[in-house]
Amino acid sequence: MTPEQSVVASAVQAWTMNIERADKLFSGLSDERMLTEIAPGKNRLVYLWGHLVAVHDAMLPLLGLGERLHPELDAAFLTGADRTVANLPSAAELKRHWDEVNRRLLAGFGGFTAADWAQKHTVVSAEDFAANPLRNRFAVLLSRTSHVAYHLGQAALAPK
Amino acid sequence: MTPEQSVVASAVQAWTMNIERADKLFSGLSDERMLTEIAPGKNRLVYLWGHLVAVHDAMLPLLGLGERLHPELDAAFLTGADRTVANLPSAAELKRHWDEVNRRLLAGFGGFTAADWAQKHTVVSAEDFAANPLRNRFAVLLSRTSHVAYHLGQAALAPK
Repeated sequence: MTPEQSVVASAVQAWTMNIERADKLFSGLSDERMLTEIAPGKNRLVYLWGHLVAVHDAMLPLLGLGERLHPELDAAFLTGADRTVANLPSAAELKRHWDEVNRRLLAGFGGFTAADWAQKHTVVSAEDFAANPLRNRFAVLLSRTSHVAYHLGQAALAPK
Repeated sequence: MTPEQSVVASAVQAWTMNIERADKLFSGLSDERMLTEIAPGKNRLVYLWGHLVAVHDAMLPLLGLGERLHPELDAAFLTGADRTVANLPSAAELKRHWDEVNRRLLAGFGGFTAADWAQKHTVVSAEDFAANPLRNRFAVLLSRTSHVAYHLGQAALAPK
């Protein structure tokens, strides 16, 4: 394993570990339990999970891995705050979307070399990328890994 | 910039961004404000910040960057839960330790190439590292970056 391969594989592993932690925390919760607030007056568990699914779904086009699978989740979980949409997907539906989106991402990650990761993501212009080569796909992976961890820390606070 | 340099610089940038967010959130809080619980019955802000300082301090020997600077923080912030030690450092003291530890880490990171990051960290044995080359310094950087994000998500919930 070259240093280049080692650092890339370590980052994909860090992503995967956070996905697995989130899966363990959210998968299998009942629809009722999903409505628990993480703290008084704060987001509900269902919002955090749906939010993670929507953000990860948006990574597909951002990383050049294909079209979005579930843009219909944005209104409830991304563009709006919790409780702005009354009709939410069931826990079982969210679990299916979560698995589908993360499976698709991980398959794409497996095909990326360090040179692929160092390429620009799709939202930055060629000029802006030339000025700042750290606006690359790898930075997206790392920032979304931190993003999962951020909300995992919150979800862990939900009263039992 | 080679792909190898780009991915390494992106990871150091992701670390730095999380450090800056934590600095913005914790620095300048009064000693009284530091005693706010992030949610009813949960850790106080002072514990989260001291915990981050202690965990980052322990990264120095783990990454081969020198001895620990503040092992005296462990009893209050690492080995014990919140409220097990009554006499805590002031917010101003924690800020000094935080700056000192993170400055030392960042100086070390600046000298690491991808080959340095791909080396084993100091706690894994040569045999275990041969069996799993992802037990490297880069994995430590990424896991501690997620760790900051995890507690940042919690600290952001503290009632204003």
